[in-house]
Amino acid sequence: MSLLVVGSIAFDSVKTPFGERERMLGGAAVHFSLAASFFTDVRVVGPVGDDFGDEQYEVLRGRGVNTDDIEHVEGGETFFWRAHYDYDMAMAHTDDTQLGVFGEFEPKLSEASQNADNLFLANIQPDVQRGVREQCTGARFAGLDSMNLWIETARDSLVQTIGGVDLVFLNDAEIRMLTEQPNLVRASREIMEMGPSVIVAKQGEYGAALFTSEGFFALPAFPLETVMDPTGAGDSFAGGFLGYLSSQEDWQDEATLRRAMTYGSVVASFNVEEFGTERVSRLMREEIDRRFEQFRHMTALEAAPA
Amino acid sequence: MSLLVVGSIAFDSVKTPFGERERMLGGAAVHFSLAASFFTDVRVVGPVGDDFGDEQYEVLRGRGVNTDDIEHVEGGETFFWRAHYDYDMAMAHTDDTQLGVFGEFEPKLSEASQNADNLFLANIQPDVQRGVREQCTGARFAGLDSMNLWIETARDSLVQTIGGVDLVFLNDAEIRMLTEQPNLVRASREIMEMGPSVIVAKQGEYGAALFTSEGFFALPAFPLETVMDPTGAGDSFAGGFLGYLSSQEDWQDEATLRRAMTYGSVVASFNVEEFGTERVSRLMREEIDRRFEQFRHMTALEAAPA
Repeated sequence: MSLLVVGSIAFDSVKTPFGERERMLGGAAVHFSLAASFFTDVRVVGPVGDDFGDEQYEVLRGRGVNTDDIEHVEGGETFFWRAHYDYDMAMAHTDDTQLGVFGEFEPKLSEASQNADNLFLANIQPDVQRGVREQCTGARFAGLDSMNLWIETARDSLVQTIGGVDLVFLNDAEIRMLTEQPNLVRASREIMEMGPSVIVAKQGEYGAALFTSEGFFALPAFPLETVMDPTGAGDSFAGGFLGYLSSQEDWQDEATLRRAMTYGSVVASFNVEEFGTERVSRLMREEIDRRFEQFRHMTALEAAPA
Repeated sequence: MSLLVVGSIAFDSVKTPFGERERMLGGAAVHFSLAASFFTDVRVVGPVGDDFGDEQYEVLRGRGVNTDDIEHVEGGETFFWRAHYDYDMAMAHTDDTQLGVFGEFEPKLSEASQNADNLFLANIQPDVQRGVREQCTGARFAGLDSMNLWIETARDSLVQTIGGVDLVFLNDAEIRMLTEQPNLVRASREIMEMGPSVIVAKQGEYGAALFTSEGFFALPAFPLETVMDPTGAGDSFAGGFLGYLSSQEDWQDEATLRRAMTYGSVVASFNVEEFGTERVSRLMREEIDRRFEQFRHMTALEAAPA
């Protein structure tokens, strides 16, 4: 099975209490692709400028990600983001954003991309997301991420776009903002009534919660002693989640979705242990499986032997 | 086995988006006692004034709580607290506090209380907590709750008091404040180095996390569609937790502690469904067991049939 992700490809300059890096490879589609690549065939679609070169392509190709449909815009510059985190690490403080070629992004998918088995719409303007969704008519499932900006400025379009996908990934503040409903259980059901069958509430250091018609599942974040750079955690989570789902026959099965939550959390936990893509780009499948078992142990009500 | 709780007994006037109540029976020791009473023999120690009467005693005795050592201070008034919650319900906004007899509380334990098998020190000034701990020399285990006020104004005393207990219940902001360590895993270990072997991080709507020398366990809060009044959730949680532990031979066993986390969460989830003690005072053990099984299902990585 193949999984297509459409979204931002970026250079990130990030400073945290543990260090800083200039112009690292980043962007939602990059973090998502690398995370998903451990489980399924990944294609990435997004725009880059003249400053994007072999070194960056190599990170993606090194994980087997198909980069044929990365769109190189001549004379343009790649999306650039500068931010810092304070000690609590829960929130990025944006210091600079240069949209570059991402500002004009109007994805026209190749035939290969249109025929992807599964689709993830990373956080982009919801009209653009809907345009992509409509080009991928055969996708078995489609997932979507969004952000407070679009809830505030393009709510109707976002609701329409949500109506055309199966899985929604939002943080819990966004879920409440979108529905104007403070109770997360009710708010998630309201989003399900818009169309999707699976709502994933991202909760940062508290992990994530899964709402389906069958019920509720929640998973803590992996307890790390050092979070070096939280950038990309949400996209790595979605990548691990949907990458695993993409590899499974019955993606709607409750046990499969719970395992997907866990794989997402595992990859996200590795992502934040170092800066940018540093950790995930050299991650091994065995490390993922080992941490999956640690999750199983640390969430088991009847504790298994340590 | 018996469990002694020493702490506040109060009248609470509370307003939430779902209604309001005047002068309900409340206080940390009351919520704790009722929750613990489903699992073990409970004795409660705390001061009350002339306004505290049969109606209030009856709520406690109706759940089998031993009230012999409630100290009636002639001419005094019971601790009174008035607060309101806004829509997010995560934080109580205090409108009035009248300490009354609680302001002069210097617990001298009866012989029966001194001989309790297990002890919980609800949130009081840490010197007072330590005085109680020193009177209960034979307690198999002692747990403690505290708050930001004491971390700010009596930190050294609190650290000394923590050194004499086995289990600490704090919310995660308090754990960070006490240790000045933003990472919760490190912060919890630092508190363990003060003496206790079990640290429970209360996380409100996100549930709770358990840190022991053996590792880490986390449990989400029960997903409720209506939280009517969060007052007493933390004390009910500690009551269910320690009440269950009190009933068990090997309270330090990891699986036992995880079940204790779950019983605590179960009782806390009932507590917040109605105002004050309304729900817990008519709760049945079968309801607890049923919700325990729901917790087991909703946290199982391999989903059991619904």
